[in-house]
Amino acid sequence: MPDPIIAIATPAGEGAIGIVRVSGPGSIALFAPYFQSHDLLTAPARRALFGVLTDEKDQPIDEVVLTIYRAPASYTGEDAVEISAHGSPYILQRIVQLGADAGARPAQPGEFSQRAFLNGKLDLSQAEAVADLIASRSAAAHRIALGQLRGGVSNEIRELRAKLIDFASLIELELDFGEEDVEFADRSALSELVAKIRTRIAALTSSFRLGNAIKEGVSTVIAGRPNAGKSTLLNALLNEDRAIVSPIAGTTRDTIEEAITIGGMTFRFIDTAGIREATDTIEAMGVERTLQRVASSQLLIYVFDIIDTDPATLTADLDRLYREELDLVVVANKMDLNPYTKYSHYFGEDYDGKWSVPLERFIPMIASEKSNLQYLQDTLLHVATQGRGALDAQEVILSNARHYDALTRADRALERVAEGLQSGLSQDFVAMDIRQSLRDLGEITGEITTDDLLSNIFSNFCIGK
Amino acid sequence: MPDPIIAIATPAGEGAIGIVRVSGPGSIALFAPYFQSHDLLTAPARRALFGVLTDEKDQPIDEVVLTIYRAPASYTGEDAVEISAHGSPYILQRIVQLGADAGARPAQPGEFSQRAFLNGKLDLSQAEAVADLIASRSAAAHRIALGQLRGGVSNEIRELRAKLIDFASLIELELDFGEEDVEFADRSALSELVAKIRTRIAALTSSFRLGNAIKEGVSTVIAGRPNAGKSTLLNALLNEDRAIVSPIAGTTRDTIEEAITIGGMTFRFIDTAGIREATDTIEAMGVERTLQRVASSQLLIYVFDIIDTDPATLTADLDRLYREELDLVVVANKMDLNPYTKYSHYFGEDYDGKWSVPLERFIPMIASEKSNLQYLQDTLLHVATQGRGALDAQEVILSNARHYDALTRADRALERVAEGLQSGLSQDFVAMDIRQSLRDLGEITGEITTDDLLSNIFSNFCIGK
Repeated sequence: MPDPIIAIATPAGEGAIGIVRVSGPGSIALFAPYFQSHDLLTAPARRALFGVLTDEKDQPIDEVVLTIYRAPASYTGEDAVEISAHGSPYILQRIVQLGADAGARPAQPGEFSQRAFLNGKLDLSQAEAVADLIASRSAAAHRIALGQLRGGVSNEIRELRAKLIDFASLIELELDFGEEDVEFADRSALSELVAKIRTRIAALTSSFRLGNAIKEGVSTVIAGRPNAGKSTLLNALLNEDRAIVSPIAGTTRDTIEEAITIGGMTFRFIDTAGIREATDTIEAMGVERTLQRVASSQLLIYVFDIIDTDPATLTADLDRLYREELDLVVVANKMDLNPYTKYSHYFGEDYDGKWSVPLERFIPMIASEKSNLQYLQDTLLHVATQGRGALDAQEVILSNARHYDALTRADRALERVAEGLQSGLSQDFVAMDIRQSLRDLGEITGEITTDDLLSNIFSNFCIGK
Repeated sequence: MPDPIIAIATPAGEGAIGIVRVSGPGSIALFAPYFQSHDLLTAPARRALFGVLTDEKDQPIDEVVLTIYRAPASYTGEDAVEISAHGSPYILQRIVQLGADAGARPAQPGEFSQRAFLNGKLDLSQAEAVADLIASRSAAAHRIALGQLRGGVSNEIRELRAKLIDFASLIELELDFGEEDVEFADRSALSELVAKIRTRIAALTSSFRLGNAIKEGVSTVIAGRPNAGKSTLLNALLNEDRAIVSPIAGTTRDTIEEAITIGGMTFRFIDTAGIREATDTIEAMGVERTLQRVASSQLLIYVFDIIDTDPATLTADLDRLYREELDLVVVANKMDLNPYTKYSHYFGEDYDGKWSVPLERFIPMIASEKSNLQYLQDTLLHVATQGRGALDAQEVILSNARHYDALTRADRALERVAEGLQSGLSQDFVAMDIRQSLRDLGEITGEITTDDLLSNIFSNFCIGK
């Protein structure tokens, strides 16, 4: 039987209210002696019970509102107690200490959610969504995490799995009659089903780039030659949206200088100082460093000065900076110096390089006056959401790298199944690959799991969740 | 009718759980359209209602536990809603925005507690205790604040006031019969009553020094000549108790270098660097600054090197540093250099100065080896608690400067009453002073109050409380 566990559930620091959460068999009985205004053992569940919490020596700790939950009707599916006290770190610590002395164990990170998973209250992808939801700092990230918590991803995966299981049972049935060379399943119907499932998987995996950008923020580099107006442009973007800037605290993924939210999407501007220094020797040693930055980014805003930079230089810079899968936006800055500047002047018919800049991603601006700033923002949002603009609330978008990985593996197994069906491979091998893809998909929702997997996932949660 | 007000009630930052609190007439109806799993208008109060909170466009914001309270059975005495959501700052902000768009006003600091006061749920001294309780970071500060919240101070003051009112009514009765020169009240019995009340007030005001030290921490200066071992001593104290150091965040009262807790009392070591620099020119310009520091402190630990410092120098230093009401502890450091060092060697019979060091406050130490550190700590605690050691949980200790001030004023009025009674002053004057003392006492519990007073008190609260 699991221990009762205890932890502070509210953020650290002082506030009006702080909450201590306890879960596990016996957790109600554990606090009963210290809350005498109601008999917790017989008190109704889910009621806000007001009273004084006392310590072992009958000294008052605080006036609290205490709510008990009885299994299975709680977050964890276990008996649980939530104590809402005054938000003093000292008091909350005293309450945790009281619980610990009475036999509760201080909870590990994510242990409440892990128990919710183990008790079938949440599947694994939903439990992961809880952490994403808490960390969400933009409208889009919030929508994806909440969709996942409410079962969006899980339902998709379960549907795919259910179809595969039907399929598998037919193949396995053939195996049972193996010697007789029976074919219960129509090979071409089977091929069609596998193709359908793979199409759906492809849609999910291809949504991951967007989902990941939404969750982590769109990594964006502003590059260009010295004095092209990179800083001015960044400042214009920041000033405009300073009010809704989300400081991404504790993010260790990248050195982030600034983050802004445009249309509910977070854009992270990555160490553009490095780029700035590097660009004045873009022909020389700086190039390497610039390229490294660009390589780890998703979006490049190339800024150039329409007077200083001629088409050949522009083309040469983009030749160097461009790589596959990099979204490219070009800002023609200082348009006030020559209002007659045209797209065609820079991107004529004769360039036959690896990259191209569509007309709508060529943005004439006067960055210092914020002219055309709104157009730039709209373009950034459009590019970042892959042309979807506002996200459909119902659409399932994959944002979890673990899910992406499992789906990719499942797809590889299904690819082998498709090939096997076409080449008339024996049922044994086809069945083996189907089982593999079932396992891969099952990892996402946690139908298939290991202790390592679970501890990997939940150790990244905060304590108290 | 007051507006509904709304605020985040949990500390800033990410956590497992965050709470938004709404209070005021209409606050339940305000959230009813956005929580469709239960009909809030008819739902029972004080139940943990689980459901999805949606926005104006029917898009889900979060899965929440929502509790409604109906007036007067709530913290504020008004209808109220508490929404327990996932602890994402983004989500909590969205909920506040939803409430604000629906007609709730973002709450001012302390506005929930102010309403609790205005609706008679807490008196003023209890409301003040809420802020103290949240800020409490030591066992003693917590005990005082909780005692005050539970009515400790209020009951004392009410008792005093009740006695005074009886008294006053007799005097006022005499006034009604003024022309007839009647004396309903026995003058000597009255004098005795006033004396009794004043004795009780004196006990309360004299507890303020301790109460204030407990609440704010005991301001402590470690002074001494260069190389006496001041830093070593501070480090020894800090290392020993680092585990229970309370970082006092956001305290603007003083520049604090370090704070430690000894036996539930907080000691704040005040800018000893300044002292350190100053002390090597203690004979010269540094003295002034050192004296300033000592003047704003409550406790002085004077450290001296038993080899370098002779009795005359020690006496001269203490002559300079000492002032009234300063608690003095003397550490004779580096005892290993001469284990035969004695108290009487430094404090002979011949010194006849303004200060004295009792034997038990003369502490031989080897600071570098932490020898006798426990003795020093016990002594510090003993001195700081004025010899009380552990505090009696039942005892009322004044910790609020406003209360102290009001009591002092009430006492001055009562002093005039006592004099008036003795000198046979006319009832008019005696009655006037009694009324004054009643007003002074009434300010403590808020029976007498002004808008300025209230806004002074509550503006120091945090938002959401």
